[in-house]
Parts: sequence; structure tokens; C-alpha cells
Amino acid sequence: MTGTVYLVGSGPGDPELLTVKAKRLIENADVVLHDKLPGPELLGSIPEEKREDVGKRAGGEWTPQEYTNRRLVELASEGKAVVRLKGGDPFVFGRGGEEAEHLAEHGIEFEYVPGVTSAIAGPGVAGIPVTHRDHTSSVSFVTGHEDPTKAESAIDWTALAETGGTLVVLMGVGKLPMYTDELLAAGMDPETPVALIERATWPGQRIASGTLGTIVDVRDEAGIEPPAITVIGGVAATRERVKAFLRNEPRSGEDP
Amino acid sequence: MTGTVYLVGSGPGDPELLTVKAKRLIENADVVLHDKLPGPELLGSIPEEKREDVGKRAGGEWTPQEYTNRRLVELASEGKAVVRLKGGDPFVFGRGGEEAEHLAEHGIEFEYVPGVTSAIAGPGVAGIPVTHRDHTSSVSFVTGHEDPTKAESAIDWTALAETGGTLVVLMGVGKLPMYTDELLAAGMDPETPVALIERATWPGQRIASGTLGTIVDVRDEAGIEPPAITVIGGVAATRERVKAFLRNEPRSGEDP
Repeated sequence: MTGTVYLVGSGPGDPELLTVKAKRLIENADVVLHDKLPGPELLGSIPEEKREDVGKRAGGEWTPQEYTNRRLVELASEGKAVVRLKGGDPFVFGRGGEEAEHLAEHGIEFEYVPGVTSAIAGPGVAGIPVTHRDHTSSVSFVTGHEDPTKAESAIDWTALAETGGTLVVLMGVGKLPMYTDELLAAGMDPETPVALIERATWPGQRIASGTLGTIVDVRDEAGIEPPAITVIGGVAATRERVKAFLRNEPRSGEDP
Repeated sequence: MTGTVYLVGSGPGDPELLTVKAKRLIENADVVLHDKLPGPELLGSIPEEKREDVGKRAGGEWTPQEYTNRRLVELASEGKAVVRLKGGDPFVFGRGGEEAEHLAEHGIEFEYVPGVTSAIAGPGVAGIPVTHRDHTSSVSFVTGHEDPTKAESAIDWTALAETGGTLVVLMGVGKLPMYTDELLAAGMDPETPVALIERATWPGQRIASGTLGTIVDVRDEAGIEPPAITVIGGVAATRERVKAFLRNEPRSGEDP
């Protein structure tokens, strides 16, 4: 009997933000393939004997995607119940689509189990709704980590600026100077509110706020580091209006 | 003692796609204010004596947002633990931002509890990843139900088309002819794959596929009805490559 692969979203990292289904599947799995993005608390709650890390290896190298694909097929072919656990949702910048295609090509049944994406929950725990009737009718998610084999960026920052909607950049700390420059050059107002959320829902969550014109300096002064989410748009100012009454405030320390 | 309001996302409707935290808060709540979007199974699992429906009323009228805002403050002021349960995530086209601001203005503490958004999970259960390295570096979410008091649409369909990314339209069945025309006029390829997902993860889930040029006819032939999600972009063709091995297939009946 061939086993099944469950492509499971872990949510942003707080173990209580797993779905009921994800929790059940992890408990019943023979093996859980994961990287580091589900976060330390959640990974620590899974028995070590059934975990296989397919994220960053010693020496700073990444496990090639081809290895992960092959390993999923191999384990399922042995009849195992396999959970492929991914940070956030498996189908949002998580290469879950590629894994699904690889499994189908090899005749392996799979199930997609959605998770809470940090693209929405990250701004949310900072008191920032990604949409708001007074500010925006759309929200766009982009990744700051594009495929490094691509010759040029496939991201059209000018078109994104022109949507007038909220922009959320995942993994966007390192390239912040690049894309804030592109958005300013596209005519976006330098006074546009911007917030950075580091380690959303993890221990050590930190939040820093500024504007499109100041956020690079804010980042440097606060020492914001990956993993972090950038949210750009009028909605980012909501934080100031609600934070005194928001019970999702950082679990350690103050805003930088 | 003033109570707390929990702005809680229910996820797309399958009761197992609640987060562990949402489930705990609902169990411990004194009262759960909800509309119809969490879906019949999930609402049916909450004891009727602690539910208050603030969605559509008899006669087809909607409860005014002002009533819901006032009721949240009233219940919290009585010291109650109040869950405001919203379909998907509270901060994605759910007016959660407005409720958060209203609570803060009235000195009521609140907590945001993210949920799985149907904007991602809907396409996902159809085998469609909203992002994919081979197709797109961004995804934009828009609503087909704009504020009816706005004189003109705030959605810039031309800019959205020019992002080159996946587009997901929530509540977008009725206006499908309008925005497919706008996207075609903006130069989007009529062969662009499009899928409609009705009642994602609810009993009676249905999926229909076509292209930007054919999807209005597909909708009419299949009789797709609200609530449904539209996904537009190269990623929508992934469904055909994986669906024979996908275990999220509709729980009743075949694709229309």
C-alpha cells in the first residue's frame, strides 16, 4: 500500500495557531519533513524521532528541492503517512505547488491542508488589517526572496504601486532599500505608512513602524532581522490607533 | 471587570480548519457573534444558546455594522468573554479593522486571532497554488463586493493585470462579466486559466475551470453561485496536472 503525503501549513509559528486538522495529522504521522519556518516552539513540540529537517544544513547550505521531492516519494512508497510541514500556508511562496506536481507525476496521492499565512497574521498581530474599507480594496503579497536563478526580477513594483492596495513583502528585510526605492520612483508617497514585523507570533516578536521614506533607517536603528514581514499602505497606521488595547503585543520587550 | 473581545477567524468552513486557539476561545466564550460565512457545519457545532447572528436578517437585510460595533462594546462592558467569529481571517475583507478601531475608541481590550483565509485555501483545495515559481512572484486579493456607497470602483483592474501575478477575487461570482471584461481590455491574454471554487471546504464544494475568455459561459453552464472564489492566472492550470491524485476533491458530486 502506498502512503499519502499531507502538504500541511503550520501557520506563523505560535503552536496554538496550528489548525485542528494539522495537529491531528502531525500526531498520526509516521514522519514529518520540515524546514525552520514553522518556528522553534512548534518544532519543539514534535517528537524528535519522527522529524526530518529538510531546511538549512550545517555549513549554511540548503537542502536541494530535488532531494525533498525524492524523499517524499520514497517515504510514501514505503507506505508511510508523511506530513510535509511548511511555515504559513504550503501554497504561498512555499514551493508546495512544485511538490504537489512532483507527487502527481509519481502517482502519489496527496492532500493539501491550508494554514494561517504570516502574510496576513504578521500584520494582524501588530494591529494592522491588510484590508480596510477606508484605505484599500486590494492587498498584494510578494516575496523578497526570488528564485536566484532568474536573470531579472519578475516583480513589477511600478504596477504594484499603481494598484493603490496594501503591499505585503515576505522575507523582505534584506532587500528593503531596493524595493522602497522602486516604489518611491513609481510615485508612491514617501509618507505612506510602513511596518516591519519580525518573528510574528514567535517568542521575541518585534514590531517597528515608519514611512516609506524612513523605514530603512528605522530598520537599521531597531536592528530588525529576518524572518520579518513588511506591510506598506495606509492600513499600517491603524496600529497607532489600536495598540494600547491590543492584547497581541510582543511577548518580550517593547517596540524597538 | 470589563471583558475582552476576541476577533477570531473561523477559516474557510471545514470545522477542522479552525485553529486550536479559535476552538479553545469558542468553547470558553460567553457569547459568539457571527454571520453566515463560517459555514453551516462550523456554526452548527457551536451551542445555540451562546450564538448571536449579526449577519443577514429575515427579509434579506444586513445587520448594520454600527449595531455589531455597539453590541461588542455592550457585551464586553458587562464583563463577558466575547468571540466575534468571522469567516476566513478577520482582517481580510471582514471589517475586522473597523471593529478593532471601534473597540479601542471605547477602551475595550481585544485580541486578534488569525484564521485560514479562503482566498488561499479555496484555490488550494482545488489543487491550485496561489504562487508558483514557474508562473508568478506575486498574488493579489480583491473583493467583488465593494462598499456600495462608493461612487466608483476603487479597484484598478488595469494595474492588477499589469502586476503579472495571480489574481484572487473574493465574492466575485456576480461581477465576473464586469472584471473579466476589464482585464481583457487591459490586455490580459484571453487564454489565461481561470477557476471558480464554490463553497470551498463546505459540504457541496464545487469547482469549475475555464479561461478568461470562457469563464462567464462556464459559470452560467455550471450554475456556480455565491459564495465562491475566482482565481485568475497561470497557476489555475495546475489543477489539471494534479487533480487525479488530489485528496481534497469535492465532497459531493463531480466537477460541474
